[in-house]
Amino acid sequence: MLGNDQTMEIEIATIGGYEEVGRQMTAVRAGDDVVVFDMGLNLSQVLIHDNVETEKMHSLDLIDMGAIPDDRVMSDLEGDVQAIVPTHGHLDHIGAISKLAHRYDAPIVASPFTIELVKQQIQGENKFNVENDLVKMSAGETMSIGDSGEVDLEFVNVTHSIIDAINPVLHTPEGAVVYGLDKRMDHTPVIGDPIDMDRFREIGREGEGVLAYIEDCTNAGRKGRTPSESVARRHLKDVMQSVEDYDGGIVATTFSSHIARVTSLVEFAQDIGRQPVLLGRSMEKYSGTAERLNFVDFPDDLGMYGHRKSVDRTFKRIMKEGKENFLPIVTGHQGEPRAMLTRMGRGETPYELDDGDKVIFSARVIPEPTNEGQRYQSEKLLKMQGARIYDDIHVSGHLREEGHYQMLDALQPKHVIPAHQNMKGFAPYVNLCESQGYELGRDIHVTSNGNMIQLVE
Amino acid sequence: MLGNDQTMEIEIATIGGYEEVGRQMTAVRAGDDVVVFDMGLNLSQVLIHDNVETEKMHSLDLIDMGAIPDDRVMSDLEGDVQAIVPTHGHLDHIGAISKLAHRYDAPIVASPFTIELVKQQIQGENKFNVENDLVKMSAGETMSIGDSGEVDLEFVNVTHSIIDAINPVLHTPEGAVVYGLDKRMDHTPVIGDPIDMDRFREIGREGEGVLAYIEDCTNAGRKGRTPSESVARRHLKDVMQSVEDYDGGIVATTFSSHIARVTSLVEFAQDIGRQPVLLGRSMEKYSGTAERLNFVDFPDDLGMYGHRKSVDRTFKRIMKEGKENFLPIVTGHQGEPRAMLTRMGRGETPYELDDGDKVIFSARVIPEPTNEGQRYQSEKLLKMQGARIYDDIHVSGHLREEGHYQMLDALQPKHVIPAHQNMKGFAPYVNLCESQGYELGRDIHVTSNGNMIQLVE
Amino acid sequence: MLGNDQTMEIEIATIGGYEEVGRQMTAVRAGDDVVVFDMGLNLSQVLIHDNVETEKMHSLDLIDMGAIPDDRVMSDLEGDVQAIVPTHGHLDHIGAISKLAHRYDAPIVASPFTIELVKQQIQGENKFNVENDLVKMSAGETMSIGDSGEVDLEFVNVTHSIIDAINPVLHTPEGAVVYGLDKRMDHTPVIGDPIDMDRFREIGREGEGVLAYIEDCTNAGRKGRTPSESVARRHLKDVMQSVEDYDGGIVATTFSSHIARVTSLVEFAQDIGRQPVLLGRSMEKYSGTAERLNFVDFPDDLGMYGHRKSVDRTFKRIMKEGKENFLPIVTGHQGEPRAMLTRMGRGETPYELDDGDKVIFSARVIPEPTNEGQRYQSEKLLKMQGARIYDDIHVSGHLREEGHYQMLDALQPKHVIPAHQNMKGFAPYVNLCESQGYELGRDIHVTSNGNMIQLVE
Amino acid sequence: MLGNDQTMEIEIATIGGYEEVGRQMTAVRAGDDVVVFDMGLNLSQVLIHDNVETEKMHSLDLIDMGAIPDDRVMSDLEGDVQAIVPTHGHLDHIGAISKLAHRYDAPIVASPFTIELVKQQIQGENKFNVENDLVKMSAGETMSIGDSGEVDLEFVNVTHSIIDAINPVLHTPEGAVVYGLDKRMDHTPVIGDPIDMDRFREIGREGEGVLAYIEDCTNAGRKGRTPSESVARRHLKDVMQSVEDYDGGIVATTFSSHIARVTSLVEFAQDIGRQPVLLGRSMEKYSGTAERLNFVDFPDDLGMYGHRKSVDRTFKRIMKEGKENFLPIVTGHQGEPRAMLTRMGRGETPYELDDGDKVIFSARVIPEPTNEGQRYQSEKLLKMQGARIYDDIHVSGHLREEGHYQMLDALQPKHVIPAHQNMKGFAPYVNLCESQGYELGRDIHVTSNGNMIQLVE
Repeated sequence: MLGNDQTMEIEIATIGGYEEVGRQMTAVRAGDDVVVFDMGLNLSQVLIHDNVETEKMHSLDLIDMGAIPDDRVMSDLEGDVQAIVPTHGHLDHIGAISKLAHRYDAPIVASPFTIELVKQQIQGENKFNVENDLVKMSAGETMSIGDSGEVDLEFVNVTHSIIDAINPVLHTPEGAVVYGLDKRMDHTPVIGDPIDMDRFREIGREGEGVLAYIEDCTNAGRKGRTPSESVARRHLKDVMQSVEDYDGGIVATTFSSHIARVTSLVEFAQDIGRQPVLLGRSMEKYSGTAERLNFVDFPDDLGMYGHRKSVDRTFKRIMKEGKENFLPIVTGHQGEPRAMLTRMGRGETPYELDDGDKVIFSARVIPEPTNEGQRYQSEKLLKMQGARIYDDIHVSGHLREEGHYQMLDALQPKHVIPAHQNMKGFAPYVNLCESQGYELGRDIHVTSNGNMIQLVE
Repeated sequence: MLGNDQTMEIEIATIGGYEEVGRQMTAVRAGDDVVVFDMGLNLSQVLIHDNVETEKMHSLDLIDMGAIPDDRVMSDLEGDVQAIVPTHGHLDHIGAISKLAHRYDAPIVASPFTIELVKQQIQGENKFNVENDLVKMSAGETMSIGDSGEVDLEFVNVTHSIIDAINPVLHTPEGAVVYGLDKRMDHTPVIGDPIDMDRFREIGREGEGVLAYIEDCTNAGRKGRTPSESVARRHLKDVMQSVEDYDGGIVATTFSSHIARVTSLVEFAQDIGRQPVLLGRSMEKYSGTAERLNFVDFPDDLGMYGHRKSVDRTFKRIMKEGKENFLPIVTGHQGEPRAMLTRMGRGETPYELDDGDKVIFSARVIPEPTNEGQRYQSEKLLKMQGARIYDDIHVSGHLREEGHYQMLDALQPKHVIPAHQNMKGFAPYVNLCESQGYELGRDIHVTSNGNMIQLVE
Repeated sequence: MLGNDQTMEIEIATIGGYEEVGRQMTAVRAGDDVVVFDMGLNLSQVLIHDNVETEKMHSLDLIDMGAIPDDRVMSDLEGDVQAIVPTHGHLDHIGAISKLAHRYDAPIVASPFTIELVKQQIQGENKFNVENDLVKMSAGETMSIGDSGEVDLEFVNVTHSIIDAINPVLHTPEGAVVYGLDKRMDHTPVIGDPIDMDRFREIGREGEGVLAYIEDCTNAGRKGRTPSESVARRHLKDVMQSVEDYDGGIVATTFSSHIARVTSLVEFAQDIGRQPVLLGRSMEKYSGTAERLNFVDFPDDLGMYGHRKSVDRTFKRIMKEGKENFLPIVTGHQGEPRAMLTRMGRGETPYELDDGDKVIFSARVIPEPTNEGQRYQSEKLLKMQGARIYDDIHVSGHLREEGHYQMLDALQPKHVIPAHQNMKGFAPYVNLCESQGYELGRDIHVTSNGNMIQLVE
Repeated sequence: MLGNDQTMEIEIATIGGYEEVGRQMTAVRAGDDVVVFDMGLNLSQVLIHDNVETEKMHSLDLIDMGAIPDDRVMSDLEGDVQAIVPTHGHLDHIGAISKLAHRYDAPIVASPFTIELVKQQIQGENKFNVENDLVKMSAGETMSIGDSGEVDLEFVNVTHSIIDAINPVLHTPEGAVVYGLDKRMDHTPVIGDPIDMDRFREIGREGEGVLAYIEDCTNAGRKGRTPSESVARRHLKDVMQSVEDYDGGIVATTFSSHIARVTSLVEFAQDIGRQPVLLGRSMEKYSGTAERLNFVDFPDDLGMYGHRKSVDRTFKRIMKEGKENFLPIVTGHQGEPRAMLTRMGRGETPYELDDGDKVIFSARVIPEPTNEGQRYQSEKLLKMQGARIYDDIHVSGHLREEGHYQMLDALQPKHVIPAHQNMKGFAPYVNLCESQGYELGRDIHVTSNGNMIQLVE
């Protein structure tokens, strides 16, 4: 489909994640070819209801709940979906694949670690049968899209709170469309390569430059720069060293999917003479996957246990051999009712907390009242057993204001499209863009779920 | 003076800093001998009035303003002051020496860096003539107090946001009195030795143990542990590296007395190919003093300029030789109206800010409305000239909850006396002590300015 | 028991509610006679555990949970308990009577409405058999305590967020002990008499004056004055009038025990042409009791339904006769999981919310994370059904700073004892007292649970 | 100028106040005729600089400072300005008239009180000579605009924190354009008529209905409803009654332009037996104007003094005749450095504050750091003299969420244009509109300063 004057039509459908964080989904049409970026799940819309099992639910019900993207707007896009491209393995980017991908005759293209998590997501699904091809493509690689010979998909390496994250770039005759969700500008990311700013700068200057930049606004309202994972690591090291002499129990928790952080915890456990052990279903899942794919080189004897029975067996062994010899790294950093640390707080596991035992939250509380209530309750129960709490040892995975400034400077995009937030969250990013000469309605496209933005007609 | 049963009377006068942060002053009497810890100034009580010059004011007026300790309660202490002992060189600990010390026939005993700052403080005084002996004593050293042969003063090395800080310990036959203001538990403090926890643990266990511990409650209500200066340094390094490629102006500001931080700024400036230069009256004062006393080894060509004329001359040179070659490290981190960065924001210096220039605040805003208003205004003026702001690259110099927990564990004091805060600030420390078996009114002494606590009668 | 110089010994045991809000209990000994003020329950310590039914639990377990006062310190008081005196009917003042009162051979003396609620509390108890006499005494009345002929108990009328609240005053030869929990200084309280400030001023000036004042510090840190219930009423009227023209569903919720507020809701419902109906177990309980005791004169046809079946039947009737004709006044203002409004939000009742329906919260969220999480969730579910939310139409029942200032001025107490808070909550009240010439440790007694304060020896 | 198909072109220029609160200015073109709504001043952009006197400054400098609207975009509007219509007398709506109005050959049309304030504004101007006709038109009246005979301007009565506020409505063949700044939905406004919701509902339903609604988003993010001025009045009455018995000094402050509030203060002063007296330059200005125009009927002997000399003379008289007989109502509610209350705090007036004297702030602190700093300082100085502070006795003049909901329901506009805020402030209003079926980019027009919105082409 050619536009006026032999240009290629470029159109963007903002399907999900433009009114919330969660259920991300964006489609870009370049001529006759469409690429879908992300198909995510908004878990908080599920959890507000009691006793909901998403694995067994139908897409339409989940759409009605606001839990997955309402992809019915896709029928307005005149073109064929050539690829479904999740940018990384977090649920808000891959969690709806098992509910929606089967509707499209297209492969799922992602980085190796992400593909593996997508595979597990599909296997856990009970309602739909997703049989799309799973194609691995690594950061730095490019594939051709469709038959025009003019459209290519490139993966640029970025740094986030999960490994193997990329930013996909769709190269078109009208310029590049850069899908910028989710990243931090990290030059020393502990695991993996630094963010590839050189490539972003090249893309900004080569050919037609950048036609459009879709940006993750999560932290756009926070001043300065998101610190590197190395800063969190240094902070964590400081905390762990400070309790080196303690001869009782120390327990740590973090995001299970945050392999770099888990790795730091494992290393520092050894530094202070303790045997690390990973406990909880998702701890086992993510770290096991990362190890199998050789993203990390954990100690050979690192235990990982997900099933409740094997977890409890491990706790019994720890109690028997002496808590002072172990560092359990467990699920439950947000006080999730069924997670391991919450169960420990409730006294439901064989691990007994004593007065003075340390609990390290290498995470921050996700600021949402339901969540804050649960986390508070979990901490309170831990403290009632004598636990000493260290929290907030963490850095965000999302760019702050100066990261956004530097991305704009690198890419020099013609159009910007704020995403991964609601209107209020877009506001500071819009302000930044305006201070750099962009104008709302002209080249800043503030939009909501289910809309189309026609960039080249 | 002997108490009952041949015990030595021990009495503590809580003179200042028990209703506020600022104007610290505490006296401890052991038998006939009295030692005074700190004589500080509460600057905010001065600044609330217009056009006040403390150098020319009389003590009594400053006492009435709440700016310096009301030491008239000292007349109730039956004993002779044998030493005045400031713990470190911050104004809230030494700022009233020039107004009060001459009333006592006793030497001022402090660590070398502190003594030097006390000397400068005395020299700047216009109203009183302070001629007390200035005696240097280093961390780890001990001196005898009075003639009883039973009382000794020891300096234990601690870590704070200024170098050469100590915690004085008064050893008496009834046990040690540990004056615990102000410190962070830092095992990797960038400059100087780590906090001497081994010695604290020894003191807690030797002889009669610790009779009383006077503790700095500033951050007692903050969870977890105050990070090491190394964490701030790693954070700062991350920020500086992230602007390494920028070819315009970069300016940094921090607490002038924070020599470790200034040193990191100087080093990282060189790492990113810029010549550091220290500008502003107190920048020159503190860094110059630290260099003369060999606490730091700055580059030979490091410029330090305090007088407005030499500062402006330096700015002119920077503008001429190219802003991209320099890192001015300036005063003004709190938006103080007359500080260098504030003048730069107002366009009152030859340094011209361009769009995209970076301003790095390696400090946090002191949370007090007057202050917050000034800092906001300063930042706003900087931003109106196009500056990009990085702030809050800092760690506190004061223990948080888990540091307090560890100090209690190390010292096992019989009595605790919360200090360096008001009642509200004492509250979380009292809660902590209660959770460890202490009781308010029995062995937790919550008090206010101008009171006596009789520990041994 | 006489003290030195033929004085009567006066001693105060601070049993519960001196480290928290909840489980209030204080005992005052005057010579040989002891009066106990309040025996309350701290519900939040119960709710943090799952599936706890307090009715069936033993006192000692509830003490261990921190849910009821640990009254074992009473054995240190040498005297006989002559009366148990709850000040008003809130759970944190009467909720432990059913667990503890049977240990004392003394009547429960309270105002008529309070006595009725105590009776119901005792009837609901499954574990203990409380058979203490229940004695009604009204505000303005006095009874003799013990056999000395020198000790009297007086009830002074106060205003709070429940009707028939009093402040008990124990008159002794050494002066009056005024137990000041919980009150607001309300001169126009909608129901009942204004606070009896004249009597407080008299007590402050007659005889020996006031020996001790035990004060409720809940809002001591809030500036200004707690507004009168009339202000909340005017605010509520404004909200109700503003939706007068709406022809769909309007639902209101408030504290069930807040009879004045319920009365205002009932009246304004009629003003805007709607039939009020009270729904939910505690709505029925408190309003039914108030009506039976003639504290209010509700319309004859005002429906009150507590049992789920009758509530649901009523909802069905409302749906049939038209939502626009009714104002359901329901439980659930804090988002309590089992309350009526929460059930409505979950769609578990026959009442169907439509887009634009109004939900009026005449209450504020009690600021505690668990609570905030539940309330957020409840509101979110209501909004997902289209409800429009009006909240925070409320005034507190507790004195703020200027109320405390006026009470001090009226009573001129020799000693003050801050209560009904933790240390942090006491702090602003201590500051106020210090500004009025009191001194911590001398005549301000900051204490914790389980302590004794000897006022006259 | 006719559009397609004989429609009339309707275009809206969003000149100022779309990125901030302050410097409001919007122009609406209907065919060949243009009406300008508001010409305001953003005072905070002035105050951030030292020693600026706006009266003497040129428009272009003030535009560069961001202090007044950049009206250069007006040259893009093809039509003739027929009227300049300020909606009410606040500076952010009339403050730039003296700098900009002379550029347009058009009368200034406003309500009588507003016209009077515009006149004074023009008289105080030193730089420009504004000679536009001043035309009074009252709420409920209509005038014809231009020569087409098809465009009319109507004033609808609204309620705000200043008297005689209106919302102008431009009636065009394409429907009405309603300029909705600034209002509260007040049915009992103390002075003046209630908001004319009946007329708004008619406008929503008559003819072509409402083409566009420009809405004030100041409080769009606050839940519920802005209370009526009657609620603030009831609150104020409660505070005043509570200090009725106090026999020392009582001082009150509020917004000088808030005539309803000043009136309440005057009345309640008399109720508690004190003679009210208005002090401070703007107190005299606004209240004097309101009295001359018969908007209020103050007591005959009410003193109003603006000049420093007469104020000080009055203070001397008050001190001589007894503070207990007066209620000075003064300027300074935001801690403005040169206002009366600030001078009183500094001890610069003959009025001496004693311990226990009351200061009533019938205002809220405008939440901006510079401001908060000044107010804090002012309060602190007052408290250092013993003053007791009552603050926050106030209601906002701007609609909250449910007011916006009701306006949408009344007007049923085809297009909405959020105004009187920045992007972040627009966000909650956009969310509300979206929940009511509007769509960003389709019929919600989020814009910034200096843009055009073409509604009918």
